Formats: sequence, C-alpha cells, structure tokens
Amino acid sequence: MELEFLGTSAGSPAKSRNVSSLALKLLEEINEIWLFDVGEGTQHQILRTTIKPRKITKIFITHLHGDHLFGLPGFLSSRSFQGADQNEPLLIFGPRGIIDFVKVSLRVSQTKLSYPIKFIEIEHDGLIYENSRFKVYAAHLDHRIECFGYRIVEKDYPGELLVDKLKADKIPSGPLYGQLKAGKVVVLPDGRRVDGHNYLGSPRQGRVITILGDTRQTAAIDQLAENANVLVHESTFGKGEAKLARNYYHSTCLQAAKVAKRAHVDQLLLTHISARYIGIQVFQLEKDASQIFKNTKVVKDFDCYVIPFPTRKVGQIK
Amino acid sequence: MELEFLGTSAGSPAKSRNVSSLALKLLEEINEIWLFDVGEGTQHQILRTTIKPRKITKIFITHLHGDHLFGLPGFLSSRSFQGADQNEPLLIFGPRGIIDFVKVSLRVSQTKLSYPIKFIEIEHDGLIYENSRFKVYAAHLDHRIECFGYRIVEKDYPGELLVDKLKADKIPSGPLYGQLKAGKVVVLPDGRRVDGHNYLGSPRQGRVITILGDTRQTAAIDQLAENANVLVHESTFGKGEAKLARNYYHSTCLQAAKVAKRAHVDQLLLTHISARYIGIQVFQLEKDASQIFKNTKVVKDFDCYVIPFPTRKVGQIK
Ligand SMILES: [Zn+2]
Ligand SMILES: [Zn+2]
Repeated sequence: MELEFLGTSAGSPAKSRNVSSLALKLLEEINEIWLFDVGEGTQHQILRTTIKPRKITKIFITHLHGDHLFGLPGFLSSRSFQGADQNEPLLIFGPRGIIDFVKVSLRVSQTKLSYPIKFIEIEHDGLIYENSRFKVYAAHLDHRIECFGYRIVEKDYPGELLVDKLKADKIPSGPLYGQLKAGKVVVLPDGRRVDGHNYLGSPRQGRVITILGDTRQTAAIDQLAENANVLVHESTFGKGEAKLARNYYHSTCLQAAKVAKRAHVDQLLLTHISARYIGIQVFQLEKDASQIFKNTKVVKDFDCYVIPFPTRKVGQIK
Repeated sequence: MELEFLGTSAGSPAKSRNVSSLALKLLEEINEIWLFDVGEGTQHQILRTTIKPRKITKIFITHLHGDHLFGLPGFLSSRSFQGADQNEPLLIFGPRGIIDFVKVSLRVSQTKLSYPIKFIEIEHDGLIYENSRFKVYAAHLDHRIECFGYRIVEKDYPGELLVDKLKADKIPSGPLYGQLKAGKVVVLPDGRRVDGHNYLGSPRQGRVITILGDTRQTAAIDQLAENANVLVHESTFGKGEAKLARNYYHSTCLQAAKVAKRAHVDQLLLTHISARYIGIQVFQLEKDASQIFKNTKVVKDFDCYVIPFPTRKVGQIK
C-alpha cells in the first residue's frame, strides 16, 4: 500500500507542481490503483511514473473545481488506448454533476471508450464502497462547492493458524485446518468439538487512509481522520492566516496539524500548496505544523509514501 | 508575426510532445496572440513560454476531439486569474458543440470567469472574422468528426509616401501629406489637383498563414493553402501509409508535401506526429516530404517560426 502524489498545487498548475491528483496503490493487496482527483495534466504526470492506467479501477473525485477535475476526460480517453479490461467497469465516485461533465465531454469529442464506466454520485455521508478487503467512507466537508473527504479502511487480516498448538493438542492435519482457519467449529473423528478461534493468532489490524478534499475546518474532518495511519490534508494557507483560510474555504498548516493530533493519526501529509509558497517557505509550512504534530510532511509531486502496518495492537489506544 | 508550437503530438500526450496547440503571435501587428486548438496541458506548456494568457484574445478550435479541446476549460480558468481585460470578450471559434462543452465545464466547476466569452460556432465555409489588419477564413476538412482548416490573411500594407518625389514636384509639406498618404485627391493652394496614388510606393503584401486541423486529403486544403507563406499540415502517417491515413481520416507526410507544392506555399510545417515515430523516424518524415517539397520541417513542441514578408511583388506568380 503506497500513496503517490501526482499533483500537489492549489488552484493553478505551477512549474514544479501540477494540480491535484493522488494515487493510492493497492497493488500488493488487490492489484488495483485508486485515483483521488484528476486535475488537468494527470495523464501527463502518470507518463512519468510506473503507473499503468489500466490498473486504475476506481476514481474518487473530492469536488468539481477544475483543478481537481479537468484532467478526467483526457485520462479516460487515454486509458481506453492502453489495454483497459473491456469487461470491467471503471468506477467513478464524486459529487452530483460529475456524470454531466464526463458525458458531455465524451459526447462532444465523440469519444467511445473501450470499457464501461459506473458512476456513483454521492448523496449521503457514510459507506460508499466495500469489497472483500476494503471499505470506503465519504463525508461532506466545508468548501465553496460540495466537497467530500474519503476514509479508506483496510479490513483486518485474520490471525494465522497456530499449527504448533494444533499439533500439541494432537489435532490431525487435513482439510479441517482450513475450516479452523476460517474460525469454524469442527467435530474431530474422536468426537472432540474444536473451535477454530482457539487456534488463531491475533488478527493483524488493517490500515486506514484519510484523504480530504479542499475544506475549511469542520467536525467531519475529525471523524474521517480518527486513528488513521495517514491523513492527507490540504494546506492552502500558512501560520497566522486562519482568517484568510476561513474566508476562502480552505485550511492552514496549523489547523491540519491540530486535526492530526486530536485524531491520533500516525502521519500527516500536507498538500494543495499555494504558488505563493516557494522554496524555504514550503519548508516553513512543514516546520510550523511540526511544532504541533511532529510526523508532518509537505509533499511534492511524485513523492511516494509506503503505508506501514500499525505497530499498536488491535483495540489499543494510542 | 510568429508561430509557436505548444503541442505537436497525435492523439495522446507523449513525454516529449504534448497534444495539439499552436500560438500565432501577432504582437508587433496588433499586440494579440491567437491560439489554434487547446489540447489538455496547454496552460502547462504556456507556463514554459513567454506567452501571457491575457494576450490571447482569440481561440480557434479545428475540431472537438479531446486532444485538441480538453485543455480549454483549464486555460479559460487560469486566464481569469492572470489579469485578462474584464471588458474585452475572448472570442472562441469552433465547430458546433464547443459552446455546450465549455458551458457545462464552467457550470459544474462553478467557474466564474473575470471576462466575457463570445462564441462563434462555424456553420459555413468562408470569412469568419475580420478586423482592420486581418481576415480569417474557415473551410470544412475531411475528418471523422466535423473539422476546420483556417486561412489567416494579413491585409496588404499601404505603400510609403514618396516624400522625395513630392518635394521634387514642389508640393508643400503639411497636413495634406496625410491625405495624400491615404490615397486621396487634394487641391493645392496654386490650383493643382494632386492624386495621392501617384506619390505612394508599392503596397507591401500581407502574409498568409494556413493552419489545418486533422484531415484526409480533400479539395478544401488546396484552397486554404493557395500561395500561403506558411502551411501547417498534419502528418500523422508516413511514406507508404496513404491507405492507413485514408482509413483513419488523416494524411501522410508525402500528401502534405504535395499540397505545399501544388499550392505554391513558401514553407511547410508538419505537425500532429504519432508516437510511433521517434528519433530518426521523425527525421525520415521530414526527409521524405522534402523530396517533394524542399522547404519542409517537422516541428517540435516550443519551436518558433518567424513568418517573413514575402519577397515576391504583389500579383507576381511564383
Ligand atoms: Zn483545489
Ligand atoms: Zn488529433
């Protein structure tokens, strides 16, 4: 599990930062990549990475401002030429309006995609997607336009089967080991009833990634971020600019750091960096936020972050 | 007058070529820049040039395929932040459907531009724009989707006033020189009637630029290109691929060169280069075309071509 930032600027592209896009690489887990926002030029950025567009199976749009959206039609077209699975629909999640934009773009350009798209326009906060390994929750943030934050929850890995303990208890190996591993109760040939749960190690806790769209400070952020392993938070403004941030429906680096602290996240990644900040000033954003929450980084385009498994045990309060 | 290529690839962006866009810089003539096509990432390309988006006053779209269009909403938004004249409408010329695409893009993204747009959806071949210095003609080409070629005609410069000849004929200087320069007939204080036309040098012929969208070979190309100083022609296919080109509604480098020869143009610039051609193969396209029409160049992104005044006299057949 890895995050690769494809665009980290606020509003307009700059020479060194493209507009928003972020890839969540789940290649080891489910051989898929999920994209969060598709600003103009995202397909160009992807050309400079090892990401294969056909591996991108789901796209989550936080909001429909151009710097998060206008790369979508071009990406969809290019993916069509690059061997996308013609039977597997690409899922696109986003606010109301996303269908309109994509359909008109494809219609006027007479683009016929080689694969189907399934749109999910999000209406209510809560669970928006689930498969055998992941759940995704969305919640409304507070931006000038309808905007969502996403919480991606990896399901816990079941505990390993404790083979040594099984052998010690003289439970014969064979197909029933599979049933025990699945946590079932099994009756042995000698009449003993054995509960699989007694022969499983502790489950390994799944990871939680929180990816927010542009937002003012609002209660939903804390809920989305609670105990996340990584929180990706916008940082359009710096220290001392809370009023400006509020007026423009954005956040400061300090506000993001306070969320990280309150929500007990492991790592804070600050993105959506204004062109007003260059060089040493970007470092200053990070430094200021770090005073409040130590494990903070301001990201750059093409930065990759591997998401480690949490070291704490299940249920343990950090 | 200068052409600056912002994107020269066919279909999809490549690492070294972006999708189509071409700037016609008329800074010395009218302090304006005109853009022909706006593929995705055009605003990013502009960041790497000296072009100021607010100087771009007119946009001509050849056709609505994504690689010629999808950068338009992002460009319009960014131009809004970059001091565009709030009273001067930006003119956008293109095929039917362009209004729909731009309006939906701006609506869903809730983008409020700081300047007005005037759309001109082209319906018929012929003159589509005229000001005191230029005329622009459009004609339908033959592509899979409605597609136009443009012919930009600079009006002739009036001849210089021949001051030495006026003095030799003892015509007194003063405000009447202005009238003579405008070609009027003036009555002198001594009663002589003087025709300004007799005291003007030869007019300087304006230049002609022909910029085509994607196209199969068709008669309109020759009409648009006739006697042009520069012909910008697509070259999606190479020598020996005429059949492929026809099937895909494109042209070969040889077909473009034949047009240049037949239409007596001064210079041929080949663009819309497929990613199948790299390195030496690109040079081969140029070499093959040059066998038919010598003054041929395959262009690259950021290539600039100054358009010289024609050396031939008005009315002279090349
Ligand atoms: Zn934004
Ligand atoms: Zn094209």
